[in-house]
Amino acid sequence: MPSRSTETEHSPAQSELGLERIVFFSDAVMAIAITLLAVDVRVPEIAATAARAELPARLAELSPRIMSFVISFVVIGIYWMSHHRYFSFIKRFDFGLMALNLLFLMFIAAMPFVASLLGQYPSLPIGVVGYAADVAAIGFSLGALWWHASRSHRLIDKSLDARTIRAMNLRALGAPVIFLASIPVGLVNPFWGMVVWWVSPLVVFVAARLATRR
Amino acid sequence: MPSRSTETEHSPAQSELGLERIVFFSDAVMAIAITLLAVDVRVPEIAATAARAELPARLAELSPRIMSFVISFVVIGIYWMSHHRYFSFIKRFDFGLMALNLLFLMFIAAMPFVASLLGQYPSLPIGVVGYAADVAAIGFSLGALWWHASRSHRLIDKSLDARTIRAMNLRALGAPVIFLASIPVGLVNPFWGMVVWWVSPLVVFVAARLATRR
Amino acid sequence: MPSRSTETEHSPAQSELGLERIVFFSDAVMAIAITLLAVDVRVPEIAATAARAELPARLAELSPRIMSFVISFVVIGIYWMSHHRYFSFIKRFDFGLMALNLLFLMFIAAMPFVASLLGQYPSLPIGVVGYAADVAAIGFSLGALWWHASRSHRLIDKSLDARTIRAMNLRALGAPVIFLASIPVGLVNPFWGMVVWWVSPLVVFVAARLATRR
Amino acid sequence: MPSRSTETEHSPAQSELGLERIVFFSDAVMAIAITLLAVDVRVPEIAATAARAELPARLAELSPRIMSFVISFVVIGIYWMSHHRYFSFIKRFDFGLMALNLLFLMFIAAMPFVASLLGQYPSLPIGVVGYAADVAAIGFSLGALWWHASRSHRLIDKSLDARTIRAMNLRALGAPVIFLASIPVGLVNPFWGMVVWWVSPLVVFVAARLATRR
Repeated sequence: MPSRSTETEHSPAQSELGLERIVFFSDAVMAIAITLLAVDVRVPEIAATAARAELPARLAELSPRIMSFVISFVVIGIYWMSHHRYFSFIKRFDFGLMALNLLFLMFIAAMPFVASLLGQYPSLPIGVVGYAADVAAIGFSLGALWWHASRSHRLIDKSLDARTIRAMNLRALGAPVIFLASIPVGLVNPFWGMVVWWVSPLVVFVAARLATRR
Repeated sequence: MPSRSTETEHSPAQSELGLERIVFFSDAVMAIAITLLAVDVRVPEIAATAARAELPARLAELSPRIMSFVISFVVIGIYWMSHHRYFSFIKRFDFGLMALNLLFLMFIAAMPFVASLLGQYPSLPIGVVGYAADVAAIGFSLGALWWHASRSHRLIDKSLDARTIRAMNLRALGAPVIFLASIPVGLVNPFWGMVVWWVSPLVVFVAARLATRR
Repeated sequence: MPSRSTETEHSPAQSELGLERIVFFSDAVMAIAITLLAVDVRVPEIAATAARAELPARLAELSPRIMSFVISFVVIGIYWMSHHRYFSFIKRFDFGLMALNLLFLMFIAAMPFVASLLGQYPSLPIGVVGYAADVAAIGFSLGALWWHASRSHRLIDKSLDARTIRAMNLRALGAPVIFLASIPVGLVNPFWGMVVWWVSPLVVFVAARLATRR
Repeated sequence: MPSRSTETEHSPAQSELGLERIVFFSDAVMAIAITLLAVDVRVPEIAATAARAELPARLAELSPRIMSFVISFVVIGIYWMSHHRYFSFIKRFDFGLMALNLLFLMFIAAMPFVASLLGQYPSLPIGVVGYAADVAAIGFSLGALWWHASRSHRLIDKSLDARTIRAMNLRALGAPVIFLASIPVGLVNPFWGMVVWWVSPLVVFVAARLATRR
């Protein structure tokens, strides 16, 4: 098994440093993606003479983009917290973990694009569907990472009991399943597709809260 | 209490690594936001033949944006130093700390937008008011984080005495209250709204200086 | 020898911190470059009335840019993993290592540019050739870094045997040689130039897999 | 003295973590600035039918920007190495160090702007002068930081002898003095202003090399 051999090849200290770099690189990518979200909210360029009259209306037109910024910030924030929680249990790494982590980060890096799509065309099915597809992909890839790491305690702490692991695997599917389910709804009616999401972060938030409490 | 249970769930070593990631992620977001401030100061595109004659005047037009860059750099710099100081006392984390920290970072990520608004429309109330509102939100969210962490020594060093904590809570409100107060002034007269701010960093700088000295 | 003297000047603890900063700085540059790749995939601006009809076609036009984003993400991801692997053996640093690392990072920082060139002009020789040249430069500079570090165990772990080092040196040349070879092919026919690449990541992936397994 | 009191207030462990955050934040800002340099080199947008004929000429027009990217990468790279070297001796921090470090980072964050100015208008005095002024400001602020930290061993290792400190203070002035000197030259003739710089990195490189060797 590859993961086993990684363990034997690297000393524990090396493995720790290597793991730290994976975590660090992921934090940096998530930090950049979350900060770039705001770059899409651009200040409208208006000639000096017309600015006083037109600026308030032009800023009001930005409200879907601002809403998209806030939702996306919350989405990346929640996934950062999940990543943070999973990696507090992960003690070793292998090629599969690195590859799944890069896949997760690729979908994170695509967030500014889909957030911009949603912010610009919130009333078109394509904006809602594209956004939902990326959030679902983020959720599934992180879920796959946790499943890969936790299966028969491959890369995690031996002390974590099988029931908690199973519960975490199930919980990981919550948000992406909701976003996946919002795709057919959004195709029919973009507004109701978005309504489905507002339920999702609420559910995840409450679940995360309960998880921390236990 | 959730914070207590976090303490018992994670071993001290795990808690330390988890805390380090929170600090790290915050530093990365603040570093990106502070560097993106300069991106708004764009070099004007002028045809080669006209450049020699027009460039100096066009660069002079950038002066409000450059001023906005410098003020915003100082603002984020000061809040980075405050964050640095608070987290030198914080020893544990819970869900509330992470959520409040993400809220603080969301307002930090919005700085390039409001800085651009101010740089482009410094003589309109909306530029001054939007900027003041974001800085106030940054200050209040960081103040709330410290209040949450320090209340009955929940997440901080037991050695910090109650009087120092109270003083730090009060001081945290200084800057955001000044920026909040500048909003009505800025609505009437944008210039005087900005004059109120120049007092604010001065006050914070001196306060921070005194705090380090004690 | 400069590297020797660095060893004697700094205590082992200092050297470790210094090495950590090099690794950290590299991770940050790679994280930014990999996230900026997505910035080139811009949402088309269409008037509200025409958006419903035109958006799908306009998004379809983005497909070469999306393909370029995915390839480039994989390329930087693979080189991040190589960098990660090499530095798990590197224990000391000297001026040459820092300079070669900066050279490697300069070619990484150029990736968003060549990815944009390829995404915009995938059917022109110049897009394919520019891209291949940058990836080859990334590979050769990282190979030179490893060669510099591993030559007579200058900066690496004494425990790594000469045969493994030689194998790693050879393997480092695999990808850049393939990309270099794709340049004349791409000059004649851009499409076949790209076909050459698709072989390359496959080869590197399999090689990395085998390397981890041993 | 403020620096003394910081030392007594924080335990050595806290001081180390605090110092690590300063270094980390600086690395992140420098990494972002160095990567954003490439963002200014934008791929020209040409209609599909004209692209084959026009693209080579349009890319050739980018050569001053590419040259500006390379010079600026080398400049930030060299200053990152200086920062790296200085902080390998710095063991404590105070308010002055943080403020001077932020000042240094502000001039680093301005590099993409002045690099863009130089890349767009390399034959105008203003491009050369603006660039030289920013590089001089970077050099002087980092020099001031080292002077502040090393004066009577305030924040540094006691083991560093006074002669080495004096030599490092002098060497820190080398590059900024050259760039300052290039300003009057550049005002008269931009080309010769730039010739002065090419001498500068060479001098710094050789000096850094010699410094590492000793």
